[in-house]
Amino acid sequence: MKNIQLIISYRGTNYCGWQVQPNGVTVQEVIMRAIKDLTGEAVNLTGSGRTDAGVHALGQSANFFTASTIPPEGWYRALNTRLPADIRVIHSRECHPDFHSRYHAKGKSYLYKILASPVASPFLADLAFHVNRTLDWAAMEEAAASFLGEHDFTAFMASGSSIKTTIRTIFEISFSNNDDLWEMTFTGNGFLYNMVRIMAGTLYEVGYGRLKAQDIAAIIAGKDRSKAGITAPAHGLYLKEVYY
Amino acid sequence: MKNIQLIISYRGTNYCGWQVQPNGVTVQEVIMRAIKDLTGEAVNLTGSGRTDAGVHALGQSANFFTASTIPPEGWYRALNTRLPADIRVIHSRECHPDFHSRYHAKGKSYLYKILASPVASPFLADLAFHVNRTLDWAAMEEAAASFLGEHDFTAFMASGSSIKTTIRTIFEISFSNNDDLWEMTFTGNGFLYNMVRIMAGTLYEVGYGRLKAQDIAAIIAGKDRSKAGITAPAHGLYLKEVYY
Repeated sequence: MKNIQLIISYRGTNYCGWQVQPNGVTVQEVIMRAIKDLTGEAVNLTGSGRTDAGVHALGQSANFFTASTIPPEGWYRALNTRLPADIRVIHSRECHPDFHSRYHAKGKSYLYKILASPVASPFLADLAFHVNRTLDWAAMEEAAASFLGEHDFTAFMASGSSIKTTIRTIFEISFSNNDDLWEMTFTGNGFLYNMVRIMAGTLYEVGYGRLKAQDIAAIIAGKDRSKAGITAPAHGLYLKEVYY
Repeated sequence: MKNIQLIISYRGTNYCGWQVQPNGVTVQEVIMRAIKDLTGEAVNLTGSGRTDAGVHALGQSANFFTASTIPPEGWYRALNTRLPADIRVIHSRECHPDFHSRYHAKGKSYLYKILASPVASPFLADLAFHVNRTLDWAAMEEAAASFLGEHDFTAFMASGSSIKTTIRTIFEISFSNNDDLWEMTFTGNGFLYNMVRIMAGTLYEVGYGRLKAQDIAAIIAGKDRSKAGITAPAHGLYLKEVYY
């Protein structure tokens, strides 16, 4: 048996997220079905973590065990012939038999895209959070600095989540833009449920003045979800890369 | 009556082109219906020209006459509340009573997008022509120079078109890229039916070596459609701007 790692990009719009679930089609099940079409094997495809309905991926990582003779570097091409156009495997390789996409992840980066313009774009309807406001990006960058380092991010976790520890380390948050389309990239050793979307929503509220950059440290320290900003919509979020 | 000009952006994927037709929903009819919803008027919305099914627009221009008291600069916002997310009016203004979107157009520019990469992008499935080849962009730029100026473009028109003159002037063709996604911008005083798509398809064939840059002048002179390249697919084409 070979352990094959896939790097996968998908447009999440038409899926109920990554993970197999009873009500609706998911990215994981569509790929597992394509593997079964190719080899007859009912494999278990292990992703680096879930993504919610409507969330996109540029580089989701997943692995599975197969007895197939398909060359490891050929899997991406073989799968793409069986997958819908909104899911593409961009790379495949054989990895160590012990490799586990979730347990061995040392970090992840996510993009959050905001289109700040008077008129939305017909091309970005499901691909960026459109806001009809002018945002103060300098204030947002200043606010983002407060997230860096190791913190208890309880205030930035969907309430009701059960998890062993709420401590996470953020390595970097960077901003870039192309005209009115902004990207915020969050890189850390892990993220709590909805954490990137709540950080993005909080930065957005700094951007239009409901919160101040200087408020962030106290919001983190207070561990009260209700003091942070909105959960920014799923369709602005992209899982960019998983680090091992 | 006021003569209102609209500048319109749309994702053409879900429409049978711009112009009202019996079989399928068009962009023109959706906007006319939105105007009727707002004012009760059954207006005739005159576009600068047709776009085919699947073709997109960044700046289609259209005008209509209305007795409504909606302020001219407010039309774009009023219409956007009634339009689907894949059609956005980005600008509106009152223009001279004689202004006609088609007759008065002095020129147009179109974009053609090509994604040249081993793997397609889930985000560009309907938004760029994906080719699994390495293209020689320098040769394509050299070839494009042959299109510049005034020529009889019969070889670059869909066969069977009936038209007064097949002479057109190309002012500029420019190339730009963001990684593997290339944009070719064609600006001219007008374009024959399918002309941009055939020029783009011909440049593509230069890019992978089936045609040579030096062939283009003879293909233009020969006025034989069968000697030019393929008609590149509609979903790579964008009407960028109309000049008056």
